[in-house]
Amino acid sequence: MIMGKTQSFQIEFQPVGRRDRFPAELSILECARRSGIDLVSLCGGAGTCGKCKVQIVSGEVSEPCQKEKEALSAEEISQGYRLACQTYAQTDLVLTVPAESLSAPQRLQVEGLETPVTPDPTIQTYDVSLPAPSLSDLRGDDERLLEALEQQHGAVCESIDEEVLRTFSPALRSLTWEASVSVRDAEVIAVGPVGGHSLGMAVDLGTTKIAGYLVDLETARTLSAKGIMNPQISYGEDVIARMARAQRSPEDAATLQEKVVEALATLSEELCHEATDARPEEIKELVVVGNTAMHHLLLRLPVEQLARAPHVPAISRALDIKARDLGFSVAPGASVHLLPNIAGFVGGDHVAMLLAVNAWEAEGPMLAIDIGTNTEISLVMHGEISSVSCASGPAFEGAHISCGMRAAPGAIEHMLITGQEIQYHTIHGTEPVGICGSGIFDTLAQLFLNGIIDKGGRIRADHPRVRENQKGREFVIVSEEERNGGSAITITQADVRELQLAQAAIRSGIQILLRDKGLADEDLDEIIIAGAFGSYLNISSAIAIGMFPAIPVSRFRQVGNAAGMGAKIALVSREKREAVQKGVRAIRYIELAVAPDFNKTFTQALSLG
Amino acid sequence: MIMGKTQSFQIEFQPVGRRDRFPAELSILECARRSGIDLVSLCGGAGTCGKCKVQIVSGEVSEPCQKEKEALSAEEISQGYRLACQTYAQTDLVLTVPAESLSAPQRLQVEGLETPVTPDPTIQTYDVSLPAPSLSDLRGDDERLLEALEQQHGAVCESIDEEVLRTFSPALRSLTWEASVSVRDAEVIAVGPVGGHSLGMAVDLGTTKIAGYLVDLETARTLSAKGIMNPQISYGEDVIARMARAQRSPEDAATLQEKVVEALATLSEELCHEATDARPEEIKELVVVGNTAMHHLLLRLPVEQLARAPHVPAISRALDIKARDLGFSVAPGASVHLLPNIAGFVGGDHVAMLLAVNAWEAEGPMLAIDIGTNTEISLVMHGEISSVSCASGPAFEGAHISCGMRAAPGAIEHMLITGQEIQYHTIHGTEPVGICGSGIFDTLAQLFLNGIIDKGGRIRADHPRVRENQKGREFVIVSEEERNGGSAITITQADVRELQLAQAAIRSGIQILLRDKGLADEDLDEIIIAGAFGSYLNISSAIAIGMFPAIPVSRFRQVGNAAGMGAKIALVSREKREAVQKGVRAIRYIELAVAPDFNKTFTQALSLG
Repeated sequence: MIMGKTQSFQIEFQPVGRRDRFPAELSILECARRSGIDLVSLCGGAGTCGKCKVQIVSGEVSEPCQKEKEALSAEEISQGYRLACQTYAQTDLVLTVPAESLSAPQRLQVEGLETPVTPDPTIQTYDVSLPAPSLSDLRGDDERLLEALEQQHGAVCESIDEEVLRTFSPALRSLTWEASVSVRDAEVIAVGPVGGHSLGMAVDLGTTKIAGYLVDLETARTLSAKGIMNPQISYGEDVIARMARAQRSPEDAATLQEKVVEALATLSEELCHEATDARPEEIKELVVVGNTAMHHLLLRLPVEQLARAPHVPAISRALDIKARDLGFSVAPGASVHLLPNIAGFVGGDHVAMLLAVNAWEAEGPMLAIDIGTNTEISLVMHGEISSVSCASGPAFEGAHISCGMRAAPGAIEHMLITGQEIQYHTIHGTEPVGICGSGIFDTLAQLFLNGIIDKGGRIRADHPRVRENQKGREFVIVSEEERNGGSAITITQADVRELQLAQAAIRSGIQILLRDKGLADEDLDEIIIAGAFGSYLNISSAIAIGMFPAIPVSRFRQVGNAAGMGAKIALVSREKREAVQKGVRAIRYIELAVAPDFNKTFTQALSLG
Repeated sequence: MIMGKTQSFQIEFQPVGRRDRFPAELSILECARRSGIDLVSLCGGAGTCGKCKVQIVSGEVSEPCQKEKEALSAEEISQGYRLACQTYAQTDLVLTVPAESLSAPQRLQVEGLETPVTPDPTIQTYDVSLPAPSLSDLRGDDERLLEALEQQHGAVCESIDEEVLRTFSPALRSLTWEASVSVRDAEVIAVGPVGGHSLGMAVDLGTTKIAGYLVDLETARTLSAKGIMNPQISYGEDVIARMARAQRSPEDAATLQEKVVEALATLSEELCHEATDARPEEIKELVVVGNTAMHHLLLRLPVEQLARAPHVPAISRALDIKARDLGFSVAPGASVHLLPNIAGFVGGDHVAMLLAVNAWEAEGPMLAIDIGTNTEISLVMHGEISSVSCASGPAFEGAHISCGMRAAPGAIEHMLITGQEIQYHTIHGTEPVGICGSGIFDTLAQLFLNGIIDKGGRIRADHPRVRENQKGREFVIVSEEERNGGSAITITQADVRELQLAQAAIRSGIQILLRDKGLADEDLDEIIIAGAFGSYLNISSAIAIGMFPAIPVSRFRQVGNAAGMGAKIALVSREKREAVQKGVRAIRYIELAVAPDFNKTFTQALSLG
C-alpha cells in the first residue's frame, strides 16, 4: 500500500510573526501549540469556552460549526473571528491572534505592537567627513565637528555633551575623520563609526514588571521587546512598601534606584542581543513611563510628600535627564525622557496610555482605564480629559486573596462554571497551584452569574463546591483530592469581600467622572482597558458584576500594554511628545476624597450586578 | 620733664584696605611694614633703588627730597608717586600701593582689584512665597514653584536642576513655603532660606598657583581673594609633564583631576571663611580660566591631541558644566563656566586677560602679553586681535636655572648692580637661598646693562664677581662666604643661554605680530604685561636687553593677575561673557612654526640689546 502524501498548509500567526507548515487535519489550536503559541483554552478544545478566538486575515478555512455560532456573535464571524479549536485550514493562511486569546506570559511578547506613527525622533544622526587638523588649521576638534555638521547637513549645533567631549577626540582620529554623529536639541550626544544604528529604548517601568522595547529611531520599527521582573520587588511588594523602604535611609533609596537601573541595563543588553547586530552603546535615547512612585524612585527624588496626604509629586512636568546621571550606560550623551505626571497617583504610565489611545484627538465620550493596585481612569470628551485615581487595592493582582498568586505557570488564569462543572485554564497548562489576577476576577464573576454569591457578596450554602470551616464559607475551585492531597484552591468569603471593595472603587471612580460631565453609562462611545490585568479580564463578566457600565461589549477595547506603546510613540515622535506636555497641563484631575457624594457612590457600588 | 604727646596720623593703604594710626616720625615704608605690608626695598630705605613707590591719594606728606627727584620722573611726582622710605605723613593719608612695589607672596592678595563692571550676572535670585499643597491643589511641587516665580517675579523658568529636584520638596516644607530661589538660564539651580547670599567664585587655574575670588553676584563686589598652590605640581612641574602623566592611564588622569577639585573645594571653604557669614553652598556659579592643559585636565578631556603636534584642543568653545559633574560641591545646581580657548597653547586664561584689559573695545595698536613657560601675546588694533604663542620655556619661573627657585621666602626677587656693589631683596627679607623668576630676569638685565655680559650673552672675565670653574664662567650674586659657608648663589653661562632663548622667543613673537600688521615698535600705543612674573619684572631692563620694544616706559602697564580679573568680569557680567565668545572666534591665531621668516627673526632676537 502506498501512503498518500499528507496535504499541508502554511499558517502565519500575526502579530507574533511565527510561520510554519502544518498537516491539514490539525485544528488551528493544535497548529498554534506546535508553533509554541499558548492559546487560552478552558474546555480543552471542546468548542464551549470561546477563549481560543483567532481572526482570519487571508486564506480559506472550514465553515463555522454550530458551536462557533453559539460562542461567537454574527458580527464577529463576519469579521473573520473563529474558534481555533473548531477551525481547519483549507489553503495557506494568515491569521491574527488577539492578545486576550494568549496565555499571560506570552502576552508580554506581543504587546510591542507596531504603532502607526510617522518617525520624527528627537535624535538625528548624520554621517560627516572632517578636515584633519594641521599647522594651518589649528581649531579645536569641537569647531571642526560643529562646522562639518552645519556645512554638510545644515545642522546647527550649539554644544557637545561633556561625556562625548571626553571621548570624541581620539575617536575621530581612529575613525580617520569619518564619523556618524547623533544630535539632540542642538547638542552632539554621540560620535561613532559610519553605518551604526540609531536606537531608542522605550520602557514601561511597572511596580511588578518592566517592559522594554528596542526601537530603530529612523524607521520607528520595534526590533525587540522583552519583559522582566522589577527587582525592587524584594524590597516591597507594592509602591507603599517601597516608598516606606526608601524613606528609611538614603542608602535604602540608593539601593532601590540601583536595582532598577541594573534591571534596565540587563534589559537593554537582552533587547540588543535579541535584535542581533545592536549594541547598548547605540541606544541614543530612552523614554521611561511609570507610576509616580516608580518615577520618583528611579530619579532618587524624595517620596515623603508623595507617601503622605495630600500626596503630591515632587515633579509633575516632563523631565529629560542624562542616562549616566542615573548610572545607566548607553550612548555617552544619551538622555532619558520621563513623561509628565498628572497627580500624586496618576503618573506618566497613564499619560502614555492616553497618548497610545490618542486621547487628545478623540471625540468621545470615552473612558480609558488602567487597572492595578491603583486604578487610573480618564474620561475623554471632545479632547478634554478629566482623571481620577481609585484605590482598588492589590486584590486583582492576587495579593490579600487566600490562594492568590502572580501570573506564573500553574496559575489559574481563566475559569468557567457550568452548573456543578468547573473548567479552568492554567498558565502553560501545568497542574494548578493558585489563582492569578484574571482567574480571581473570573471566579468572582462566575460565582455571581451562577448565583453562588448574591448581590451583597454573600456565598450561598447550597452549591456542592461551597463548604464551611472555621474561617467561614469558601468555594472550592480545586479540591484536596483533585490536587492529590495538596491543599485546596478556594475563594473564601473574605476574598469575595476584598474583590467587592476593589470593583466598587473602580465603579465609583467611573460614576464620579460621568456625573461630573453629566453623562450616563450609555452615552459612552468607547471604554478602553489597558494594562496586563485589564487585557485578561472577561468584559462580559465585569459588566455582569457591575464594575463596568452596561454598554455593548463591542464598545470595549482591550489594548494590552498601552503604556509601553505610549512610551514608544513618545520615543519616536517629537511632535507627539510635545503635544502631550501641553495636553497633560489641561487635564482636570478630580480628587475622589473631596468629590461630591463619593461615600454614597462607593457604598452603592459595593453591590454586585 | 613732661613727655609731649607724640603726633600720629591715620594711614590707609589701598587697595589692600589696611588702615592704622602711626607716629609722625616713621617713614611710610616703616608704617607699611608695621601694617604687615611687605614693600620691596633693595637699598634698605636708603632712597636709591626706587622700588618702594607709593601713590598719595589724599592728605599731605613731606616735600620730595633730592633722592626722590632722581629716582622718580617729574611726571610720576606730579601724579603723587613718592618713595615710601623718604616720605613722612603730615596729615591723615590715603595711598595706593602699586602691585610692583609689593613683595611676591603679597601680590596675590591684592590682585583681586575691584573692576568697574555693572553687575549683570547669569544668576538671578528671587524670594518667593508658595501655596502649600492641599486636597484642592494637588499639583507637583515643581508646578507651584515655577508658578510662584512667574507670578511673583515674572521669571519664566522651564526646568529645575535634577539635584535641586532631589532636595527641594523637603526643603520647601521645612522653610514653610517661603524660599529664596536662584535661577540660571531659565533653570532653577538652588532653593534656600530667604535672605541667603548669592555668591560666585572666579578662579584662575594656573599651572603653579590657583587664585580664587569670592564675589557677591548682586553687587559684583569681591568678598575675599586667596591663592593656593596647584597640588597637581607633585605629578609634574609643567604642563608637558602633567599631560604625559594623564596619558599614562585613566587612573592617573582621574587623580590629576581630583587633586585640582580638592584644591578648589579647599579654596572655596577658605574664601568663605575669610568673607565670614558665607557658605560654599551659597556659591551659585563659578568661572574658571586656565591654559588649555589645565582646562583639559580639569574636565578630564583627552590630552593626546593637545600634547602632540599640531597641538589642538578637544574643545575651544566656551563650556558650561555642572560643578557636581566635576566632583565639586557648591550649590546643588551650580555650574562652572569655562571661557573659550583660542588655540592649543592659547587658553581661556589669555582670553580672560584680553577681557580684563577690554581688548575688544580698545583702539590700539596695543600688545597684551602673558609671560610664562608658554608666553601668549595678542596684538589689538581697532578691536581686531591676532595672537601668537611663544615657547619661552620655564627659565623665567626658575626652572633649568642653576640657582633658580619659586617665589618663596628667601628667594631673591629684585637685584641691582652698581659697579662692584650688589643689592638685592629677598621675599620676606629673609636670608637669600636662591633666585626666583623676577630676580633671574633682573640679574640678566643688570649683567647686560653693566657690561658683564656682551650682546651675544658671553660672560666677560673682568668683573670681580665673575669666576670660572669646570662648568664654565659664572657670576656670583651671593658667595659661599656671604652665605656663611652655604653654596653660592650664581648665574652661570648656561643660565644666561637659557634666558637668551626665553627672551628671544618672546621678542620674535612680538616681531611676527607687528610685521603681520605692518607695524613698527614705535607705533604701539600700549603694552600690557599680565601674570605674576610680568608684574615683577623691571620694564626698563626688559627694554634694555631687547625683549620688549623700545617705547617709553609710560606706555607699559603691568596689570597683575588680569586672568583672575577677567574671570571675575565673566562671572558678574552676562553681556561681557557673551561678547567674549563672539570675540574669540574672530581672533586671528598665527602659528609661529609656519610664520614667514620665523627662524631668521628668532636668531636675530637672540642678541641682547
